[in-house]
This record gives sequence, structure tokens and C-alpha cells, in this order.
Amino acid sequence: MAPPGAKKSILERLDAGELVIGDGGFVFALEKRGYVKAGPWTPEAAAEYPEAVRQLHREFLRAGSNVMQTFTFYASDDKLENRGNTQRFTGQQINEAACDLAREVANEGDALVAGGVSQTPSYLSCKSEEDVKAILKKQIDVFVKKNVDFLIAEYFEHVEEAEWAVQVLKTTGKPVAATLCIGPEGDLNGVSPGECAIRLVKAGAQIVGINCHFDPETCVKTVKLMKEGVEKAGLKAHYMSQPLGFHTPDCNRQGFIDLPEFPFALEPRILTRWDMQKYAREAYNAGIHFIGGCCGFEPYHIRALAEELSPERGFLPAGSEKHGNWGDGLALHTKPWVRARARRDYWETLKPASGRPFCPSMSKPDGWGVTKGHADLMQQREATSEEQLKILFDKANQNA
Amino acid sequence: MAPPGAKKSILERLDAGELVIGDGGFVFALEKRGYVKAGPWTPEAAAEYPEAVRQLHREFLRAGSNVMQTFTFYASDDKLENRGNTQRFTGQQINEAACDLAREVANEGDALVAGGVSQTPSYLSCKSEEDVKAILKKQIDVFVKKNVDFLIAEYFEHVEEAEWAVQVLKTTGKPVAATLCIGPEGDLNGVSPGECAIRLVKAGAQIVGINCHFDPETCVKTVKLMKEGVEKAGLKAHYMSQPLGFHTPDCNRQGFIDLPEFPFALEPRILTRWDMQKYAREAYNAGIHFIGGCCGFEPYHIRALAEELSPERGFLPAGSEKHGNWGDGLALHTKPWVRARARRDYWETLKPASGRPFCPSMSKPDGWGVTKGHADLMQQREATSEEQLKILFDKANQNA
Amino acid sequence: MAPPGAKKSILERLDAGELVIGDGGFVFALEKRGYVKAGPWTPEAAAEYPEAVRQLHREFLRAGSNVMQTFTFYASDDKLENRGNTQRFTGQQINEAACDLAREVANEGDALVAGGVSQTPSYLSCKSEEDVKAILKKQIDVFVKKNVDFLIAEYFEHVEEAEWAVQVLKTTGKPVAATLCIGPEGDLNGVSPGECAIRLVKAGAQIVGINCHFDPETCVKTVKLMKEGVEKAGLKAHYMSQPLGFHTPDCNRQGFIDLPEFPFALEPRILTRWDMQKYAREAYNAGIHFIGGCCGFEPYHIRALAEELSPERGFLPAGSEKHGNWGDGLALHTKPWVRARARRDYWETLKPASGRPFCPSMSKPDGWGVTKGHADLMQQREATSEEQLKILFDKANQNA
Amino acid sequence: MAPPGAKKSILERLDAGELVIGDGGFVFALEKRGYVKAGPWTPEAAAEYPEAVRQLHREFLRAGSNVMQTFTFYASDDKLENRGNTQRFTGQQINEAACDLAREVANEGDALVAGGVSQTPSYLSCKSEEDVKAILKKQIDVFVKKNVDFLIAEYFEHVEEAEWAVQVLKTTGKPVAATLCIGPEGDLNGVSPGECAIRLVKAGAQIVGINCHFDPETCVKTVKLMKEGVEKAGLKAHYMSQPLGFHTPDCNRQGFIDLPEFPFALEPRILTRWDMQKYAREAYNAGIHFIGGCCGFEPYHIRALAEELSPERGFLPAGSEKHGNWGDGLALHTKPWVRARARRDYWETLKPASGRPFCPSMSKPDGWGVTKGHADLMQQREATSEEQLKILFDKANQNA
Repeated sequence: MAPPGAKKSILERLDAGELVIGDGGFVFALEKRGYVKAGPWTPEAAAEYPEAVRQLHREFLRAGSNVMQTFTFYASDDKLENRGNTQRFTGQQINEAACDLAREVANEGDALVAGGVSQTPSYLSCKSEEDVKAILKKQIDVFVKKNVDFLIAEYFEHVEEAEWAVQVLKTTGKPVAATLCIGPEGDLNGVSPGECAIRLVKAGAQIVGINCHFDPETCVKTVKLMKEGVEKAGLKAHYMSQPLGFHTPDCNRQGFIDLPEFPFALEPRILTRWDMQKYAREAYNAGIHFIGGCCGFEPYHIRALAEELSPERGFLPAGSEKHGNWGDGLALHTKPWVRARARRDYWETLKPASGRPFCPSMSKPDGWGVTKGHADLMQQREATSEEQLKILFDKANQNA
Repeated sequence: MAPPGAKKSILERLDAGELVIGDGGFVFALEKRGYVKAGPWTPEAAAEYPEAVRQLHREFLRAGSNVMQTFTFYASDDKLENRGNTQRFTGQQINEAACDLAREVANEGDALVAGGVSQTPSYLSCKSEEDVKAILKKQIDVFVKKNVDFLIAEYFEHVEEAEWAVQVLKTTGKPVAATLCIGPEGDLNGVSPGECAIRLVKAGAQIVGINCHFDPETCVKTVKLMKEGVEKAGLKAHYMSQPLGFHTPDCNRQGFIDLPEFPFALEPRILTRWDMQKYAREAYNAGIHFIGGCCGFEPYHIRALAEELSPERGFLPAGSEKHGNWGDGLALHTKPWVRARARRDYWETLKPASGRPFCPSMSKPDGWGVTKGHADLMQQREATSEEQLKILFDKANQNA
Repeated sequence: MAPPGAKKSILERLDAGELVIGDGGFVFALEKRGYVKAGPWTPEAAAEYPEAVRQLHREFLRAGSNVMQTFTFYASDDKLENRGNTQRFTGQQINEAACDLAREVANEGDALVAGGVSQTPSYLSCKSEEDVKAILKKQIDVFVKKNVDFLIAEYFEHVEEAEWAVQVLKTTGKPVAATLCIGPEGDLNGVSPGECAIRLVKAGAQIVGINCHFDPETCVKTVKLMKEGVEKAGLKAHYMSQPLGFHTPDCNRQGFIDLPEFPFALEPRILTRWDMQKYAREAYNAGIHFIGGCCGFEPYHIRALAEELSPERGFLPAGSEKHGNWGDGLALHTKPWVRARARRDYWETLKPASGRPFCPSMSKPDGWGVTKGHADLMQQREATSEEQLKILFDKANQNA
Repeated sequence: MAPPGAKKSILERLDAGELVIGDGGFVFALEKRGYVKAGPWTPEAAAEYPEAVRQLHREFLRAGSNVMQTFTFYASDDKLENRGNTQRFTGQQINEAACDLAREVANEGDALVAGGVSQTPSYLSCKSEEDVKAILKKQIDVFVKKNVDFLIAEYFEHVEEAEWAVQVLKTTGKPVAATLCIGPEGDLNGVSPGECAIRLVKAGAQIVGINCHFDPETCVKTVKLMKEGVEKAGLKAHYMSQPLGFHTPDCNRQGFIDLPEFPFALEPRILTRWDMQKYAREAYNAGIHFIGGCCGFEPYHIRALAEELSPERGFLPAGSEKHGNWGDGLALHTKPWVRARARRDYWETLKPASGRPFCPSMSKPDGWGVTKGHADLMQQREATSEEQLKILFDKANQNA
């Protein structure tokens, strides 16, 4: 196997017009496997249960991922402390273990290691720019020490904090990607996707886009708005999308967290592999060349992206060894009507039933966001103390 | 850790009134992870990718399973050859590897190893009782050599073949469990669940029940019918259920295989953890003490069974370290309306939306089974040659 | 126009193998038009607003009905008094007005007048057989005076009361039909449909069947069970069905009254005209020759029955003047895709959307009936005092 | 009863801040009663079956309508001829009969007669302004002769034709209302609702708004946009809405005609009376004071509007005699769980089931409008010859 140094960098790939397949969401996948706690969503399993994290990396690599993101979501010190639990490992230990696991598996194939940071409690509780940057700096020091290949600032609801993150990441000299977890309505302060993208590019991000909070259709739509904004401003960037693996046509501005099913009853919303192929094609057609996933993506979802784009990439992922194209593994089934499912148009047009006749197809999101007027009032950054939230919530309910 | 010999046997546990938590379905879980091919559904990954199989065992153990089933589903030689692929490993190698992995992980906790056999192509193509038993004997020789703790004959659509399997398994002197993949209408020859159970018990099975093909509600209902039959006949047995992790209210007699969504669009049917707690309670109330899962069960589903039954068992599984009871991991969430989800009645009464407004809630099953009359005509054993199936199918369609 | 005397009687028609098309449900149709109050459901509008009742009769006649049922549902004196309102008209006046209206419109076409009685509060409050019969006798005196063509005892939940009614109706010497409002599980005392039918035939009914409470599919299924019972007993009868115009796959034994949507939110359940054609065909295939409707049937629903059976009857109803067969009125539409709907297979296979993405497709019925066990305990006749009902209800809820 | 001359005019009512309740849709209601043919949708029944039309007028009056619209929809000579049928009555006879019926019933209560014109085939086939106006003039001459109280130009998809209609109507000196059948995206030439409203007001309409094609929620939203446009332009008008009685969240720009269910399978979309009360309140809150309905509205729907707004109007409609407020007619039901439905919050929060588990909740509209791009290309006026439509349709399908 070639040494990591021999691999093309993320920018060499994108500049050459190559497609880059991202990986899937670790916190949700590992929650279902028993290694992450829903609520805190912190990644201490990188240090506690390395074999479980390594295995998931391997599955994504096998599925076709070119990027092993370090399992460092919500691994800033302020977030880890926030949990209120005594930790067996320090933040530095968790971040270092995550880098080692990502590198180990990346070396087993054609993948790069991306160090990731995400939004901080410090920002939400109105700490200063200096404080927020200092928190992020601690993770980045680990990424530099471990020599990751590039950096991603992801899961930011406010473009302002994302800009700060990009500025810190840029100090490393490595390529920087930045994704917000927003929809077409813009960030939580009402900044439009186009304007957000312009600010991130100006801050130094070479790749911009969207991750989490919304389904693939919504995320592709939002990245399109970002691309339009960047191009109108006469700027240049590469684009990425890493959406949810859940259908969320009924979200409000704050995404799937406000859906009543979050996070423990999202199952009926999980995308099929065919939904994923559709997403891959739509993202590609929209000019997005870094295509991956976030919460809800399992390895077979990533494989579906790689299979859909195999004509463009010129090869199938290793995992396709165990997968027939468009269901052709069923071609030898003993029942004629199951054999009849071994074809593309069957799966492309099927409208899968939920088996849940007492359940609706859409939900009303909880929270202030229900009413448009409340969304505008929701100045979350200014109101994250328990007391402030309570007051706002009660006021919203009175008006609802 | 205690040596395996020190563990109580499966019958000691059940005789003492203990609850035994089974594991989940390997072929579906590993298909999504990229190690099993849908269609053949064979377990060569036990030899090819042992780390992936070992990891899944570990996750089920951590979730609370007391039983590590060897990953030997469809691992009879006739089935493996059926695939038409050149195999890197012999059937014996696959079966042995599967035993070793199950034992290795069982030794890490309070779990027993169960060697498993399932229905054979030989039976379906009308081979003689001798031929079928000879095929099963080859797997059982491995189980004896590897000294598994007990044996399970599972996934049989015809009670006759299951009886033959039990007879072979009984030659080992080890405890024997037998589960059919049938619903309340009985096996594919129309033998009722009660009668099936009686025949299995008379053949020597100490534990009888249902696995696969139907959702938990249907499986519990069917095991109840088995129990009624056994009790009316003045016999004794223990009972087990290992249903699908999918809602299937719309199945016909042949189960989920005839649903149009099988096997690549079942996502909207996946049970939530709360559905699983309901299942565990209902199974327990029905007198079923060996409670596990089959296709569609992920580790968090098994953990839900163990959590629901923790009052009866007296302890929580290791995996509950990363799980709040009834969602209480959300109790510290910043948004008040998400915090409000940290309670039992919220999740128990929630009717989760599918996010799929263009999809129905139920499907019409494919195949002969659609019309009751056809189901009766479906003498599958006599008609498994390609030609015979084609003729029957066309005839059924003309009548439909 | 021929004088009424010249028309063939109901039994002459059925004995000759002719199909008889019934009419639709007056109380629901007139409730939507503003002339019947939901809750009491009494027909005083026959006297109060004769032009509204006459118009509805005319619409059913035009739609193809051969039977004008007198609008005398719940017009027994004990029921009318029950309302607690001061009535502008006596029971006799209402019953007489209803007969006159039915006769007036029947004379405008090939229809017979059927006088109808239904179950009484007297029976439910445990009055004696004599008392109940005396109440029914008062309505029947009017029917004799007004010389209706035949009689229908309809909407009985207990076969015992229906037998009493048939016995009273038989005293007139006119042909007698009897329909229960039960499903395949039998009457509220658990008497099976087959046994119910036998008892009604033995009491003297020449036509037996089902009306109200369940959708067409369920009613046809129940009449089939009645027919099997009658034939096994070596008896003879004609069969009729007058089901709901609502889809009710989710009912329990007590029918649509226990559905949460009853009676003010049943709209999403209304059958289309194509559903009605399917019903007509299935009823005909089941050997039912008197085919009509009950609550929820509007004139266009009856027309759909007459259109479906026009090959058998040899003519179309007058109302088809304003209706294209299988949508062919769309054949000249300016939009090509609307023109493309002017064909049978389009409407036969369409799965109509509800436009209600936040609503489920099925409901859990209210009441004791939810749990099978409670249904068995529900000895309604013995427990209709307010106090008794309250006690039973609370007990059922405690057990639920 | 006061003579018609003594009634306040439509503008006196609206200027005084009174609420005006409109009537419901005649063509759909009479299609179900058997007097209108779907496809042509023409109103010759006014002359052919006056008693049926009169009865429907009476039901709306009783339900609370203050406006009896003449049943003259699609009664322009070019449309009537278009049908290709030999007519028993001339256009003038139909229009005159419709005026007489409306006047007869209006005189029975506090209602005004509104003469109505709608869009013409002449416009769609590109006839000149003069030709179109001449066609409309013929209907208006009847309205003048019959001395209707005011005039409504309704069901226009192109604001240009609606302006022409208003100009012709204004020549009578009577008050003029104008409603388009468009949604928030604007008319079929892409003119926004706000701009449409401005043009209609400038043409002389004193009342502007929306009718048909979309559900109440969408119509109220569109009228709001019209109101904003008019107010921003410094103009004044009264506002009206007469939406569908069907839920249509899934429509494209052309409204319910493109839904696959149109027109023969819309039943699951029918609004309940409680949906109607919600609509009435929302319309009122939006500043709409002329509130009625269109296709799908039955008399009980209009009554629901009048009941919801009875606090503002100070009285209930006559039809409430047969209706309990918020279901209180159930208060005496024998079953406790049905009695429990006699309250407002029960019906307000109920999510009614469809009883159709094999059907979806939303549909994809047919036609060019599916893709946004096609909607822009759809220059319907320029392409209404059969050949042109065919070419456009095929082109659209190739691109879809």
C-alpha cells in the first residue's frame, strides 16, 4: 500500500474534477451500536472503545469513502465538561485517539484524514471571540501534532462562529472545509445561505457546504443557494454536502432536532439505498463534488453513493463485492416475484410502505419555530441561559 | 472471568425461571455493514472478515444478549454451493470460524454459544430425509467438535424438515431449540402452530418458538398458539421468539419476503427502541422466557429488550452505560421542548411520522399468497424447479 | 306512467333473478344538507321540510334506485320522545308524511315503497317483548294505512329484537326484509352471522342481510356468512346489503360509531364512485341481488352501483345522462394529462391521496371494544342505565 | 319578509364592517346529486331541473349564505357550444332561469343575488379583446334584465381576461367583485397576486380575491398577498375568498385540476366542518370579510363558517337548528366514549384517519407544472390548439 504522502490532497482531487466520497455520521451509528450516548453525543468512545470506532471507519472505507473524519464531534473541552460526568479520558486523549484511528484506517485505502471541529457551548453562552477561538485551538493543536490531511469546521448554526473556526483552522496551513447545519432559510440569525457561503470563502475556506439537520434534498437545495451566492460575488470554491440519512420534509428552520421523533423515533424516516443513489446524482448535477453523509448514514448508504457515481469515478467500491447493482443479487431467488425485483425501475419507482397505519406521514415540529413570527424572535445566542430560555418558551407558547 | 464451564446451561436458566435475552439478526446487520450479500444471504464473512463478525457479536453481548448464535445461517453445503460462486472457504471452514468467533465473545461475558442450522435447499428440492439429514449432520459435526453449549434449528417453513433437524441435533446430547418462520396461519403445508409445536416437542426440542418472517406482535401471537397446543397436549416446553425488527401488519402467510419492500426498502418499517420494549413486555407476559430478535434487529434493539426486562432480571446491560432510561439523556438539552422528551409517556405514545408523504402505510404482498385460495394451492415443496414455479405463478396470475 | 299496482313486487323481482338497487342513507345525507341533527338522528324533517326529503328521494330514483325507503329511521315513539325536545309533529304525523313522500316519488319511476323500522330504545332499556312489539306496531299501522309495498326491519344490533320486529311485520302479510348492523363477529350478544340469518328466516323474513356500521367489503363478507348459514340449514332466502359509504377497515365489533371520527370527521373515509363499482360487483358475485347503501351514500354512489350493474340489468339509470362511463366526460378536456384520465384502468388502479399528511390512515376505536376481552364482557342490554355504563366503562379503562 | 329592495347592498354591508357569508360550489354539489356532468361542468340544469337547483340554493341560504350566486358558471355561449351536445335550452334561457332561481330563494331570506361570469374558451383560443368582451356581454345583458344585486367575475386564470371582464361588468353600474383561481405563485402568465389585485382594482372591482383551485389555507394566503399589494399601491378594496372544500397541500401552480384525483377521487380530501371553522377564523383574521366557498363546499360547510363567525355576526344561521355547537348533539349518546366527543377540543385536535392504508397522503401533480422549469414555459394562451398542446406535452415529458 502506498504511504499516505503519496495520496493526492483533497484540493488536488477537487481541482482535477475528481469526485470525493465522504463518510457517514459516527454519533448516530455508534449510538445504535452502543458506544455513544444520545443527548450529550460526545465521542469519548474513541478512547474507550477504539475497536468499535475502528470498525466503523473500516466499513465506511470499504463502502467507498475517501475521507476518514476524526471522530471528534463535540470534542471541544467546554462541551466535554458540559456533560457533568467524570471522564475517564481528557479531551486531548480523546482527540488524539480519534486521529490515530482515522489515520490507521485511512492508510488501509485511498482515504485522507480530516480533523473536525464543531460549534461550541462557549459561543452559545456568549463567550468572546477570543474565548471561542481558544477552545477550538486546543483541538487544532492535536490535529497539527497528528498531521491530519485537511480540516473541516462542521455543524455550525451561526455563520459568525463558523468564520471564527475557519480563521483558526487556516493558521495551520492545511486545506479547510466549512459546513453549516442550516437550510434554505439561512442561519439562526437569518443570514442567507448565499451570504453565509461568501463569508466562509472570504474567511479562507476552500470548500463550503452543508452538513446535518436536513435531508439530502434540502441540503442540495441549500448548497445550490450557497454556490449561487459565491458565484455572483465573483468568488471561487468547491462544494460539499453531508446531509441526514432521514427524510425531513416537515422540518422548520432548526432542522430535525425540533421534529417530535428526534432522536429516538426517527426510524421510519431512514433513507433507502435507492433514495441515496438519487441524492448522489442530484448533488453531482448541482456541481457538488464532495458528497458524503451525516447522522443516519450507515455504511450501505455511503456505498450507494459510490455505486451511483461509479460511472463518473470509473470504479466500484470494495464493498460492492457484497452488493448487486440495483438488486441483481435477487436474480436467482426461488420465487418468481422476488426475482422480478432484480431491476432498476422496480426500486426506483417503489413507494415503500411504513407498516405503521396508525402513524402520520409528517409531523409538526416542536418549539418556537412552529410559528414564523417566533422564528424571527429566536435570538438563541442571546438567550441560552436556562432562565432566558424558559421565559422565551413560555412567551411563545402563550402566543401559539 | 469465569471459564465457560462455570456458566449455567440454557436449560438450567430457563428451568430456574430466568429470562434469556437472545441476539439480533446477523445477515441483515452485516449486509448494511457491507459483509453479506442480499439474495444469497450466506455467512462466508465469518471466515473472510472475522473482525466485522466479532464486533457485531460484541455489540450484542454488550447490549445484554445471553446467547451468541454462531453465524452459520444458510451455511449448509448445499446452500453454499447453490450460490454459484467460487468460494474462498469451504463450508467446514466457515462453520468452524463462526464457532470460534461466537466462543471468543461469549467468553467475554455471561453468554452461551448456540450452534445454528436452518432450512436446506435439499429439502425444498425434494431430496430424501436421509439426504437432508446428511447435509445437516455436516454442520453439526463442527458444532460438536467446537463444543457449542446448545443447538438451535431455526428458520424452517415446513415443520417436517424442522423435525428432521431436531432429530439430528438430538444425537449430540446437547439441549435443542427449534423455531419456525411461520405465522398464525401455520406452516407452508397448513400445519397449525399448535400442531407444529407438538411435533417439535415430540421430536425432542426442549425449547420451541418462532423466528423471522413476521413482526414481534405476530410472532408473540404465534408462539402463544404453540404454547396452547403444547399445553393442551399435556406436554412441556420452554418458549422463545426471535421476530423481525420490522413492522409487518400487511404480510400474508409467507411473511416479509412477499412484501414489495423486501429486502431493499424496508427502512420505514424498522421498529424503534420503544416498540422493542413493548415487544419484550408482551413476550414476557405471554410466558416466553427466551426473547431475542432476527432480521432487522440492531444492537440497540436488543438493549431495549434488556432494559425493559431489567426489573425482572435485576440488572441493566453493559450497553446501558450509553443510554438513558426512556430518553433521560435528553434531560440536559438546551432546548426546553427537547428536554420535555425525557420521559416515558412521551415516547410510549408518540406516533412517529415517516417523512414520506407520497408513500402508503401498508402494501399488498406479491405472489400467490395474495389470494387465500392460492396459498392453499402453494405446495412449494413439490414445485421448486424453475419450470414448476413458472407454471404455478402464471396460473395464479390468471386467476387473480 | 304505469300505476303503482302495475309494478312487479319485490319478491317477483328477486325470484325472477332481477337485481334490485336500493337507495342511500337519508340521515347522513340530510344532516349535511341541514335537515337532520346528528346525535338524535331522528326524521322529523319528513314533516317539517318535505321539499328537502322529496328532493333526496328524487335524486336516488334518478340514480337508479328501485326502492324508496320511507324516511322513518328512529321514528318509533319511544325514540322520538327520547330526544327531550318539544316536537312540532307527532310520531304518527312524521311516519305518515314519510310514506307520502316516498310514494309520491316512487310513482315517478320504477320504484317500490318500503316501510322501515329500526331498533328501539325500549329494547335497550330492557322492556318486555310485548312492550317492544307494541312500539313497533304503531309505525306498522301507518305503513298498512299508507299501503307501502314491502317492509324492512333494519339497523338491529341484537338478533333477538330483529326477530320480534320481523314477527310484527309479518302480521301485515307484506314481504319482509331484515338487516342487522353487525359484522363478521356477529351480533352484540355474540350470535354468529350465520345463526342470526337462520333465526331471521325462521321468523319469516324473505330477504336478509346487513346494513350500516361497516364498509361494503365487510358487509359483503358478513352477508356471505349469513348465506352460508342459511344454506347449510337447508333454508332459502334472498340477500341484501346496504353498507356504509365509508372505509372502515379499523372498526371493532360495534362498527363505525366507536371510530374516533364518528360522526363529524368521517370525510377522509368517503368512498369514491369507483370504490362503489367494486362493491356492486363483489356483492353481485356473492349472490346478493338487493344492493343499496346506508349512511354516507350520496346519489352518485347509488348511480355507480347502477352503472356497474347495467350490463346485468340491461339499462343505465336516468342520472347517467350527466355522467360519462369511467370518466369519459373528460375526453374533451383541454389538458392532455386530464384527457388521459378518461379511461377505466386509470380510476380502477388510482390510490387517492388524502391531502392530509399529518393524519394517519387508521384509527384505534374507542370504548370497551378495543380489547377483545372487553367486547365479550359488554352485555349492553343489561347495562344501559347511565350508572351501569359508567361502572363498566371505568372498569374497562382500568384494565386497558 | 322585507322586499329585496329593502336589503342593504353588498357594499353597504362591507363598508359597515359586516361579514358576508358566500355560498358553496354548485357544479360539484350538483354533480354528486346527478344534475351536472363532470368534464363540461356547464349549468344547463338551471333550466332543465330547476327544483334541484332551487333546493341547493335553499340549503345554502339556510346554512347562512348572504349571497345567492346565479348558477351561470361556464354559461357563456362559446362554452355551452363547446360541449358538442345538442342543447335543449339556449344560453339565454339558462342564464335567465338561473337568475330567477337565485332571486326566488334570495327573497326567502337576507341574501343578495350575484350574477357570475367566468373565463371563456374564447380567451384561451386567443380571440381578440373585443370578441371576449362580446361573449361576456351576452350574459351581462341577462343580469341587467333580471336586475341582479351585484356581479362577480370569478374563476379566471389570467388577470388580463379578468380585467376585461371587470370592464364589461362595470358598464352596468352595479357593484363588481373579481376573483382569480390562482395561488401564491400568481396567474398563469406569472403575474403576482399583489399585481393582479392592483390591476383588478384599477379596472374597477370594489371587491377582489380568490376562488376555486386551492384549499382554504392557500387561498387565504393568496388573498393576503393581494391585500398587501393593494395597500402598498395606496389603493382600497374589500376582500373575498371562496376556496375549494378539498385539502390540496400538494398542488402546483395550476391547482387541483392537475392532481391525479381530479375530479373523481377527491373524496379523501374533503374538509370537515371543523376544518371549515378554522378557515373562517383565519380568513376573518386576515381581513377578508366576504367568506364563502367553491367546489367541494356542501351546505354544512357553509353553516360551519356561519357558526364560527356567529359571535362577530351576532346570530346563528337557521340551519343551526339541526346542529349542536362543536358536536354537543352527542351529549346524550348512550355510550360514554361517544358522549365524550361532545366538546370543542376533541374535534379541534382530532387527526382524522382515512381508512385507506394503501393510499398515500399526498400526490404528485400531473402535467407540465411538475417541474418548475416547465411551469415557466407553459404559455397556455399561446398553445391551446390540440396540436400545440400535444407538442408541448411531449416535449415536457421528454425533459421530465
